[in-house]
Amino acid sequence: MPKKFDDELTQLKKKLVTMGDTAQKMFETVMRSLVERDASLMDEVAASEEVVDRHQIEIDEDVSRLMAIYGPVALDLRFVLMVARINTDLERIGDQAMNMREHAELLVREPELKKLVDLPRMAETAANMLQGALTAFNTEDTELARNVIKNDGVVDALYDQIFRELLTYMIADPKNIARAVALLFISRSLERIADHATNVAEEVIYVVKGVDVRHEYLQEE
Amino acid sequence: MPKKFDDELTQLKKKLVTMGDTAQKMFETVMRSLVERDASLMDEVAASEEVVDRHQIEIDEDVSRLMAIYGPVALDLRFVLMVARINTDLERIGDQAMNMREHAELLVREPELKKLVDLPRMAETAANMLQGALTAFNTEDTELARNVIKNDGVVDALYDQIFRELLTYMIADPKNIARAVALLFISRSLERIADHATNVAEEVIYVVKGVDVRHEYLQEE
Repeated sequence: MPKKFDDELTQLKKKLVTMGDTAQKMFETVMRSLVERDASLMDEVAASEEVVDRHQIEIDEDVSRLMAIYGPVALDLRFVLMVARINTDLERIGDQAMNMREHAELLVREPELKKLVDLPRMAETAANMLQGALTAFNTEDTELARNVIKNDGVVDALYDQIFRELLTYMIADPKNIARAVALLFISRSLERIADHATNVAEEVIYVVKGVDVRHEYLQEE
Repeated sequence: MPKKFDDELTQLKKKLVTMGDTAQKMFETVMRSLVERDASLMDEVAASEEVVDRHQIEIDEDVSRLMAIYGPVALDLRFVLMVARINTDLERIGDQAMNMREHAELLVREPELKKLVDLPRMAETAANMLQGALTAFNTEDTELARNVIKNDGVVDALYDQIFRELLTYMIADPKNIARAVALLFISRSLERIADHATNVAEEVIYVVKGVDVRHEYLQEE
C-alpha cells in the first residue's frame, strides 16, 4: 500500500476515535445532568448528536473512497471494513444517549425518586469500556480488548440489580412508577451502550487476531 | 465487473434476504407464542438465532472475499458495503427477538394481564416493514423503501400508546407491574426492530439514488 493510503487511514482512525469520544461525552453528560439535577446540560447533548451524525456520514464516505482508490486487500481491507462497522456502533451509542436524555428530562422536572448510586456506576463502567475499546482499536491491543469484553458482565449484573430494585419502588407506591420506568429505560440504554463497546472490542480482536469472537458459542461446538 | 462477480453478488443478496426472513420469523413466533400462550413455540426462536448468527459471519466473510478478489468500485462497491451494513441490522433484529423471547417466557407462565391487541398489530406492522425493506433491497425499489420509512411513524405512535396504557395498568395494581414491565420491553424491542427495518430501507435509497436519508435533518439546513 502506498504511504498515502497509510496517511489517510491514520486520519480515518483519528476521526473515528473523536466520534467515539463525542458519543461517550454525550451519555456521561446526561448522567451528570441527572445526578446534579441540572437540565441545562442537556442542550449540549443534542448538539453533540449532530457532530456524531456528521462524523458517521463522513467516515462512511471516507471508507468508500479509500476502497475505490486503493482497493486494499488482506489486513488493510479487514481494517477498513472494521472502521465501517465500528462507525455504526458509535452512532448507535449516540442514539442511546439521546434516548437516555429523553427520559432524564422527565426525571429532572420531578422530585428525586432516590439517590442514584448504581446507575452512575453503570455509566462509569460503560464509559471505561468504550474508552478501552477505542484505545484497543487505536493501538491494536487485543489484551485490552479482551478486558473490555469481560467488563460487559459487570454492566449486565448492575443492570439486573437496578431492574429488581426499581420494581420494588414501583410496587411500593404507584406515584413512583413513571419515574422508575424512566430510570429503567436509562439503565437499559447503558446496558446497550456497553454492548456496543463490546462489539467494538470484538471487532478489534477479529481484525488483529483473525478470530471472530462475536458468536463464540458457535465455535465451541 | 466479470459475470462471476454478478453471480456471487446474486448469491450474497439471496443469503441476506434468507437471513432477514429468519429474523422476521423469530419475532413473529415470539408474538404468536405470547398471543396463543404457548411456550413450546419459543424453542424454535432460539434455534433460529443460531441460523441468523451463522449467516452474519458467512456474509461478512463473503463481503471481504468479494472485495479482495474483485476490488469493486463505484456502484458495485457501494452495493457490497450496503450488504455489510444491512447484515448488522438483521443480526440486531434477531437480538431484539431474543430479548422479546426472554420477557415473553415470563409472561406465558403468569396469568394474562390483558388481551393483546395493539402489540400484535405493532409486530405485524414491523414485519411488513422488514418484508418491504428486504423486497426494496432485492429489487432496488426506492419507492417501496420510502413507504417503509413512512410506516416507522405508525410503529412509534403505537409504541407511545402502548407505553401509556401499560403505565395505567401498573398504577392500578402493583400485582400488574412485573407483567406490564415485560410487555413494555417487548413493545420497545418491536419499536427497535422497526428502526432497523427503516435503516435497511434508508440504505437502499442511499445506494440506489445516492441520497443519504439517514440523518435528513442535517441536509435540511
